[in-house]
Amino acid sequence: MENLAAQAARNLRAVRERKPLVHNITNFVVMNFTANALLAMGASPVMAHAFDEVEEMVSHAGALVLNTGTLTNEWVAAMIAAGRKATEEIIPIVLDPVGSGATKLRTQSARKILAETRVSVVRGNASEILSLQDDKTRTKGVDAVHDVDEAGRTAGILAAELGSTLAITGPVDLITNGRRVVRVSNGHPLMASVTGTGCTATAAVGAFLAVDRDPVSAAATALAFFGLAGELAGDSAAAPGSFMIKMLDALFTITPDQLQRDCKIETT
Amino acid sequence: MENLAAQAARNLRAVRERKPLVHNITNFVVMNFTANALLAMGASPVMAHAFDEVEEMVSHAGALVLNTGTLTNEWVAAMIAAGRKATEEIIPIVLDPVGSGATKLRTQSARKILAETRVSVVRGNASEILSLQDDKTRTKGVDAVHDVDEAGRTAGILAAELGSTLAITGPVDLITNGRRVVRVSNGHPLMASVTGTGCTATAAVGAFLAVDRDPVSAAATALAFFGLAGELAGDSAAAPGSFMIKMLDALFTITPDQLQRDCKIETT
Amino acid sequence: MENLAAQAARNLRAVRERKPLVHNITNFVVMNFTANALLAMGASPVMAHAFDEVEEMVSHAGALVLNTGTLTNEWVAAMIAAGRKATEEIIPIVLDPVGSGATKLRTQSARKILAETRVSVVRGNASEILSLQDDKTRTKGVDAVHDVDEAGRTAGILAAELGSTLAITGPVDLITNGRRVVRVSNGHPLMASVTGTGCTATAAVGAFLAVDRDPVSAAATALAFFGLAGELAGDSAAAPGSFMIKMLDALFTITPDQLQRDCKIETT
Repeated sequence: MENLAAQAARNLRAVRERKPLVHNITNFVVMNFTANALLAMGASPVMAHAFDEVEEMVSHAGALVLNTGTLTNEWVAAMIAAGRKATEEIIPIVLDPVGSGATKLRTQSARKILAETRVSVVRGNASEILSLQDDKTRTKGVDAVHDVDEAGRTAGILAAELGSTLAITGPVDLITNGRRVVRVSNGHPLMASVTGTGCTATAAVGAFLAVDRDPVSAAATALAFFGLAGELAGDSAAAPGSFMIKMLDALFTITPDQLQRDCKIETT
Repeated sequence: MENLAAQAARNLRAVRERKPLVHNITNFVVMNFTANALLAMGASPVMAHAFDEVEEMVSHAGALVLNTGTLTNEWVAAMIAAGRKATEEIIPIVLDPVGSGATKLRTQSARKILAETRVSVVRGNASEILSLQDDKTRTKGVDAVHDVDEAGRTAGILAAELGSTLAITGPVDLITNGRRVVRVSNGHPLMASVTGTGCTATAAVGAFLAVDRDPVSAAATALAFFGLAGELAGDSAAAPGSFMIKMLDALFTITPDQLQRDCKIETT
Repeated sequence: MENLAAQAARNLRAVRERKPLVHNITNFVVMNFTANALLAMGASPVMAHAFDEVEEMVSHAGALVLNTGTLTNEWVAAMIAAGRKATEEIIPIVLDPVGSGATKLRTQSARKILAETRVSVVRGNASEILSLQDDKTRTKGVDAVHDVDEAGRTAGILAAELGSTLAITGPVDLITNGRRVVRVSNGHPLMASVTGTGCTATAAVGAFLAVDRDPVSAAATALAFFGLAGELAGDSAAAPGSFMIKMLDALFTITPDQLQRDCKIETT
């Protein structure tokens, strides 16, 4: 789609120029990769999770990224505090409900964050997103057990219910706010063999939300950008170690024009 | 040894096919590398340490990996809770007593885990393993100060005492349950210059235990596989940064036939 | 400067020979990269933050590295306990006041560590260092908002006040104890696109302090060494993923003679 491809280029250019501060309260596994990915794409990451400083830190930020991997109750309290402050100051929030559906702690925490803060975008796999609605859904760890189409059928309804844009990632990503539906087909199979690619895609959505307040457009263009980095990495790497390094390289080297040309964003 | 070489190939094939969920309660330094290594070899890693969710999470898992690096008392409590649940549900546990012997907290925690849960395999360096027995042993940080032979002399007795298989890694790895003794000589010197290779070898043992309930065979074949990945990395990298990336690549690319051919497992 | 170039070579040789244990209480984002960098240069890293074990752990160490990223009050308490023990046992301490100035928690914690322990070297960007003095200074996350010259004007006074050597890093690093002033101009622009390069430079200062008790000389030679690794990485990598891997490689491969020849250390 012409408009979103052009918007993708504008968003990437804006991230590189404005270097928005992206405040992450995220899991221990992916902190390093996420920070490196945000730096590579041109944003300014900060990680801070102490209850005593998250409100002050988020007030400096262009976006807040909340992620429920390696969760404890203390971290949930900090996420809620940061999220309320962000809501108050109209700073966009993106939620990654890692492992929602796998344990009660994760499912309830994700739902609590959605209830108590204004989340612009929820980015997860189909199983995680569905768990936000349906108590009978269960994920196997953090892997998807439902496909994107199954998720798509209920995504629109759920998005409207939650008042958030949903970004359900898989071989084809589906982004919807209940009215508009956008599909992104950039990506590479090796992304599933690197830990934290999902979490880091979420952080990329955060960086794009800091410069584009339309959640559907920000999410779709960020996922296209992140997926394109995967495609380029896959051109020169055939195994996951080299692939993840090449992905960081690509996040740095992709130009706005290249993104506009090679993004695969479709409005349906 | 013919049988264990064939078993190594079977185990690797089974990990790739079944993609067992490996639940890790491990240290902050190695979480990312360990998760990436498990993904590269074909397993499904999950990291979760909250007391409130570890029992639920481990009940989904094929193996539980407990690691005492960057420890606090809260984490020990979560490890014990997860370990008891795993013991109850006959899910194999592998323990990595990182830094046992270096501080009282680490030594006592490792011993407590061994006393209160049923640990299938303990994987450590000679000094760490010896510290489980002898109060006078002290490690210098997490480095080995005793060689594998010194450890070997007491390993059989200690394994019988603890009721666990011991996997003592060094230039040659020694695996024993007090009756059988197996030696593995795959590996590369640069593995000692990458943080978390020991911890990640332990996680590989966890993945193999999920598909092979014989602790001696699972530990020996996993260590041969992991060491072979080091050898292949050493063929194309001469310094530790490139080496660690090539190791992740090799964990992904080594085939079962290649492992059967190139593993160096010896029953003595 | 001839003397410091020769001292740089001596320090690197001593780190490789003695493999000093460097005890880090540092942030979650950089733990892995820092541990790998310390291993690559030849030191022995250990990460430990539990209040119950830090005093015991630090008493084995050649240097203590304290870092205020991803801080909570529990971690501050552990840093103070470790720092007091190190002070008592005359083990050198290096402080990295990450994000000082950005939130009250970070600023007050950094100041508290300085007040209650004997810090040999403080390594930070200009904004972080200035925040230790001036309540009106504010940093944007962990990025520098003041240049090295602005910092230089007040650095000498602040160093004398604090009784610590200050190492203010930027395009040119400035090291001063209030009497001597040294400038280091090794480095590469891509270092700013990799998370934790500052934190890891601090850890390198720790490793060098373990073998060289002159804080000005240890800090200047460590920063020259670390910057030279960046320069060499920049010779073969044009984007941050590959660059960070090549930096780890260079920390391993740089020889003492090469460091003596290529370090850019200037006494003014």
